[in-house]
Amino acid sequence: MIKHLRSAADLDLATATLILDTAGEMAALAGREVKKLPTLRGRTVVNLFYEDSTRTRISFEAAAKRLSADVINFSAKGSSVSKGESLKDTALTLQAMGADAVVIRHSASGAPHRLASWVDGSVINAGDGTHEHPTQALLDAFTMRSRLGRLAGLRVAIVGDVLHSRVARSNVLLLTTLGAHVTLVGPPTLVPRDIAAALSPATKVSYDLDSVLPDMDVVMMLRVQTERMQDSYFPSAREYSRRYGLDLARMRKLPEHAIVMHPGPMNRGMEITPEVADSSRSTIVEQVANGVSARMAVLYLLLGGKA
Amino acid sequence: MIKHLRSAADLDLATATLILDTAGEMAALAGREVKKLPTLRGRTVVNLFYEDSTRTRISFEAAAKRLSADVINFSAKGSSVSKGESLKDTALTLQAMGADAVVIRHSASGAPHRLASWVDGSVINAGDGTHEHPTQALLDAFTMRSRLGRLAGLRVAIVGDVLHSRVARSNVLLLTTLGAHVTLVGPPTLVPRDIAAALSPATKVSYDLDSVLPDMDVVMMLRVQTERMQDSYFPSAREYSRRYGLDLARMRKLPEHAIVMHPGPMNRGMEITPEVADSSRSTIVEQVANGVSARMAVLYLLLGGKA
Amino acid sequence: MIKHLRSAADLDLATATLILDTAGEMAALAGREVKKLPTLRGRTVVNLFYEDSTRTRISFEAAAKRLSADVINFSAKGSSVSKGESLKDTALTLQAMGADAVVIRHSASGAPHRLASWVDGSVINAGDGTHEHPTQALLDAFTMRSRLGRLAGLRVAIVGDVLHSRVARSNVLLLTTLGAHVTLVGPPTLVPRDIAAALSPATKVSYDLDSVLPDMDVVMMLRVQTERMQDSYFPSAREYSRRYGLDLARMRKLPEHAIVMHPGPMNRGMEITPEVADSSRSTIVEQVANGVSARMAVLYLLLGGKA
Repeated sequence: MIKHLRSAADLDLATATLILDTAGEMAALAGREVKKLPTLRGRTVVNLFYEDSTRTRISFEAAAKRLSADVINFSAKGSSVSKGESLKDTALTLQAMGADAVVIRHSASGAPHRLASWVDGSVINAGDGTHEHPTQALLDAFTMRSRLGRLAGLRVAIVGDVLHSRVARSNVLLLTTLGAHVTLVGPPTLVPRDIAAALSPATKVSYDLDSVLPDMDVVMMLRVQTERMQDSYFPSAREYSRRYGLDLARMRKLPEHAIVMHPGPMNRGMEITPEVADSSRSTIVEQVANGVSARMAVLYLLLGGKA
Repeated sequence: MIKHLRSAADLDLATATLILDTAGEMAALAGREVKKLPTLRGRTVVNLFYEDSTRTRISFEAAAKRLSADVINFSAKGSSVSKGESLKDTALTLQAMGADAVVIRHSASGAPHRLASWVDGSVINAGDGTHEHPTQALLDAFTMRSRLGRLAGLRVAIVGDVLHSRVARSNVLLLTTLGAHVTLVGPPTLVPRDIAAALSPATKVSYDLDSVLPDMDVVMMLRVQTERMQDSYFPSAREYSRRYGLDLARMRKLPEHAIVMHPGPMNRGMEITPEVADSSRSTIVEQVANGVSARMAVLYLLLGGKA
Repeated sequence: MIKHLRSAADLDLATATLILDTAGEMAALAGREVKKLPTLRGRTVVNLFYEDSTRTRISFEAAAKRLSADVINFSAKGSSVSKGESLKDTALTLQAMGADAVVIRHSASGAPHRLASWVDGSVINAGDGTHEHPTQALLDAFTMRSRLGRLAGLRVAIVGDVLHSRVARSNVLLLTTLGAHVTLVGPPTLVPRDIAAALSPATKVSYDLDSVLPDMDVVMMLRVQTERMQDSYFPSAREYSRRYGLDLARMRKLPEHAIVMHPGPMNRGMEITPEVADSSRSTIVEQVANGVSARMAVLYLLLGGKA
């Protein structure tokens, strides 16, 4: 088993499949009377969050607690970090306090890699800059497999601001490893061809969502960072929504069996309409539930539980 | 047993009595060597706080942990909520993460009702706008019963800014259900007759604290929201204090056995003097202790423990 | 056993030695498969932090959780405290909620003493103003004893802004009790002779770091509060660093066996250079690890565990 999960590229097919299988076992726990395993009793998981992300933090916290680990939340705001302590010194501190795993969210791409070079425990990337968010890709893959029965050969469109999306990046890497075919869709400014090629040579690019939909098994809508809407990358909100937003009319162009995904939180009315978000094809709520299972699997396997 | 506790009106006499009896058993735990029950092991309680309220949050947290539940604190500040995520999407997220109970504090009256329509788990109202705060009413009733031996027939004065007080509102509803007689006391601007009547037809209103005190078994002083002192509702602080503040002279007008309550935090010197707050008639500290017991009882019963 | 740890002066030689010995047993836990003792199951430890200090809070939190206590974090920011609730009312609230120990960090010197007069549980000072930080002194003493085999007769230099340092103050008191010899070093404005004498008559003072180093077993560098750099107490940053910073050249003046300590977080390049901080003589990371062990020992003994 790998020790760290810094990038979806850390995962080969066998490892990724083992994590997904383990996530399935973890999901089965949810049906039990006592939804708790003693596996990580006495282990300490630190959530080291340099950016606010309550959803992701809570998901990891719930996952670790269901495995009976002790969880310590470390929000960098107002800490010695804001007094200028380096990431290295923070890392050595957490290490010394006995952290068995550090879950890190950081605005700087690559922070988890540096962290992993300084600590003995496992490092799990919970989102670094515009770089990666590998547990999101795992929960997405788990959701696809649960709904559609397989990953190999699946055709997946990822739609929106691919350029700045760590979710897109991790999904392309993992889905390619798992044998799925990815098409990136969005305005040319937000879906540069060279980025697609660099991530995986097999990745396709399209600027026309309507023409792509009929061939897809999965369409994954990315969140529009509304604070980026001012940037020259973006058309107007209205124009963006008209060309790349998913509404009911557009959803009907998908094959009957296809599913609609979104990593949340949604901008309802922007990249996705409420009707689509709440439709039976939408897996948005399942993705959240699967997030806890996928993170349990990652913590379980990285911290030395047996499969 | 009811599933949610959104309002004190959710409680009929039998249910309220069962909660109070269970709170008594929970209070007995405090005397044991290990102050912990395994009842809610593997259950997850989320504290979803849209307003800061450390006291209430800690009370629920302590209650849930003594029942061995896993507790996750979700402060809306700095979360995706502040990026405009709707309450509904937050609710679906917590639901998907496996929250067995959501304890919600929100500035909007009615938020717990809406939340309850979206989640499978139990919803407990920890204060919504100027609307209700039912566990406060339960701990107050428990405190009265512990001190005075009964609730039926008890005469209770609630004094202060009734108009904006969720504590007052929940107390009127619960105390009426339990057979106590409530008199609301304060300046006419803050104790409108129609509100009293709407809450419960039997509720009396008085604008003269001194004339009311000799007949009371309980006087409950409400916290003055000093930020409201600018409003036209309020006389000057000095005038308010002179007419509706409880000092030693006024306390002596109460019958010998009567008790003085306050939900905290107090403005010592405003609605209550330090001498009264620290007197043996004051139950203010007991109310805090009883708050943990009452909340344990609510969590225990709503989440399916047996009585 | 003492009930509170408000000051290093609460510790006589026997008690301090018992805590250090117990810390040694706690440190041995770290090597076990399950790093957890059931000793404090059902006990509640409240971290009452009026100042941000993530490192110290996390260290206490990890310590309490390894002893199986329930931990409740109470940050005064945004709480009723910020609405003007007095420390006394907060104390009575925590007491009523059943706190078995309150770990307090406060900007006012003496706050832990006042707190201890109001609550039944144990009070542990986690730093009060410029006054004391006794668990820091315990972890420092534990680190010296682990590295050098003894404390009696040890020669320790404490270097920097002694005037405003609670770390220095607690260390002088505890080290003197334990039989070590302390020399305080820094600019005259920051190391007043009367303060040294008041703390312990045997304490020496020097303004010349270079002349002191060859005789020391331990040199403990204090953190420069850069926000104080504007004060008239301080020479310029450059001048301070030149005269009182520890670099490799200066470190070589120490005896072969001597160690370099720092309470963290460091200003690398100010009071200590990165080369010194990362050298094998530096105990900075050990201090953090020993912090958890020392705090476990304090919680264990104060809350009635047997030695």
